[in-house]
Amino acid sequence: MKSDIILLGHGSGGKLGHQLLDELIIPILSGIAPGDQNDAAVFEHAGGRLAFTTDSYVVDPIFFPGGNIGDLAVNGTVNDLAMAGARPLALSVGLILEEGLAVAELRQVLEGMRAAADGAGVRIVTGDTKVVPRGKADKVFINTAGIGVFDHALEIRGSGARPGDKVLVNGTLGDHGMAVLASREGLELTTNIRTDSAALHRLVAELLGELGDAVHALRDPTRGGVATTLKEIALQSGVDVVLEEETLPIGEGVAGACAILGLDPLFVANEGKLLAVVAPEAAGAALEVMQRHPEGRQAAIIGEVTGHSAGRVRMRTAIGGLRAIEMLAGQQLPRIC
Amino acid sequence: MKSDIILLGHGSGGKLGHQLLDELIIPILSGIAPGDQNDAAVFEHAGGRLAFTTDSYVVDPIFFPGGNIGDLAVNGTVNDLAMAGARPLALSVGLILEEGLAVAELRQVLEGMRAAADGAGVRIVTGDTKVVPRGKADKVFINTAGIGVFDHALEIRGSGARPGDKVLVNGTLGDHGMAVLASREGLELTTNIRTDSAALHRLVAELLGELGDAVHALRDPTRGGVATTLKEIALQSGVDVVLEEETLPIGEGVAGACAILGLDPLFVANEGKLLAVVAPEAAGAALEVMQRHPEGRQAAIIGEVTGHSAGRVRMRTAIGGLRAIEMLAGQQLPRIC
Repeated sequence: MKSDIILLGHGSGGKLGHQLLDELIIPILSGIAPGDQNDAAVFEHAGGRLAFTTDSYVVDPIFFPGGNIGDLAVNGTVNDLAMAGARPLALSVGLILEEGLAVAELRQVLEGMRAAADGAGVRIVTGDTKVVPRGKADKVFINTAGIGVFDHALEIRGSGARPGDKVLVNGTLGDHGMAVLASREGLELTTNIRTDSAALHRLVAELLGELGDAVHALRDPTRGGVATTLKEIALQSGVDVVLEEETLPIGEGVAGACAILGLDPLFVANEGKLLAVVAPEAAGAALEVMQRHPEGRQAAIIGEVTGHSAGRVRMRTAIGGLRAIEMLAGQQLPRIC
Repeated sequence: MKSDIILLGHGSGGKLGHQLLDELIIPILSGIAPGDQNDAAVFEHAGGRLAFTTDSYVVDPIFFPGGNIGDLAVNGTVNDLAMAGARPLALSVGLILEEGLAVAELRQVLEGMRAAADGAGVRIVTGDTKVVPRGKADKVFINTAGIGVFDHALEIRGSGARPGDKVLVNGTLGDHGMAVLASREGLELTTNIRTDSAALHRLVAELLGELGDAVHALRDPTRGGVATTLKEIALQSGVDVVLEEETLPIGEGVAGACAILGLDPLFVANEGKLLAVVAPEAAGAALEVMQRHPEGRQAAIIGEVTGHSAGRVRMRTAIGGLRAIEMLAGQQLPRIC
């Protein structure tokens, strides 16, 4: 660890965050090798497999266009299970409340959680509530953990990408991050940017059902955005990835806001998106499955795995150059989820 | 909800906390009936049963005599699984770090977690780390969720107490709460009070192995202490409980500190204690199992279930009177776990 203290950037999901995880937290707590780190742990139990994952949500503000911290906390954990190919079975909820929080706001957050859980068909089965004095938290922090089960024998991991594979995304980039940023800063954006927060397990089930083992890797590009997440997959798989800038689906509002604010949508968080790395012969079918699904209307093939490497990601720009894509360095937008 | 805002007392584990859960959180999130609320959820999966639980830890300070927030977070969740009769299988860890936290302190907390997990024989398999700006959290908050499995067919619930049953505790009351309070307030206590934080699943396995279905209810008296926890069991089971004050095991240091500070050890938190409600003919054997176990040397039979009722708990005092015991009202010691 180069720093003696924790910096905001350690929570960005980017380079500093990976350093904190790889050099301190994971070696002490679990010893899981970097290549085996996925959104959910998968382990054997009673002859079957279980997936297990956890995420804490500290988004600021807790309400934003299209959602709130509550539905985010359900959808995010459902998605982490889905990215392992698992079907979400049960969620836990840990609430940390700041003294003075309005009960009406808490009610709205809880209703957001319940609606998202009902929508995803997952049960909230256990929970815990703590209260800390005023000024020792920020309104409400939510942890959700989730258990998932498998309806198939496929193994979906970040290390599964292979040369020749195509990279798909199920829709536009950066909507969640820009929606949160705009409401945090009170930006008067002329366009209506809303979070893309959504549960993706049904889309994943359809992809796996139709494509089977042609699906090589799945991951949701949350903190650090598509760039950081794709870099993780490239590193874990030991492959070289080339993105095509012209194919990236980016909404007009997000593109405009990013241009004004000097942000790159490739690094902005999503909460209802997944990257799918699939065998080349299955890419067309994968695109069809996505586009007929409510969460994939604007899906696109955005890149290709071009060979083995130490995990290089590049983007062919609109003018034809190749730009190196690294993980988010420092922090672009803190507390985005 | 009588209050429009969240109060510190809503996190006490006592009356206000139960009101928040019963009137707002549980009806919205899960709808689980009060009588069915236990430390861990138990549900069927693939012909077997799984236990699932979560707890967030916000203790202040994060280091105290005998432990830190890290080992507490592991032992507490292991114990919630154990109170359902489950064997802990896997834990998740969600860290919320405050910007500026010393990496050396984080390391010590993580090492506490790992040592506790190794001691309990449970694996930490998945995790998440968030960072919030200075002043938006307090050093570190930890959520742990746990999955447990069952090596038997017994059903252990808070609603299982029956008239005639004996109530046992596996050792002295109030050590954890007083250790935290003393280090928070910088109290110069002449006695050496240490947290009792410990994993109790092996003790529970021995109790269940020797006594089988004579074990009617188990619960760990954390927030709100023995009084609040026993009241929960009495309410869930619809029984009348009488405690014998003279039998309560209380360390000299805790008794003295409580007397000076005007606190009642019956309401002070424990982190390595369990209440066991057992059939009368099994009480002697239960006491023997506890007393031969490292976590039960000072175990005692402290009361009896005297009949059916709406959940009345009373204590026969040293001078022979019967004092009504209610749940902790308001908050005695906030942020004790």
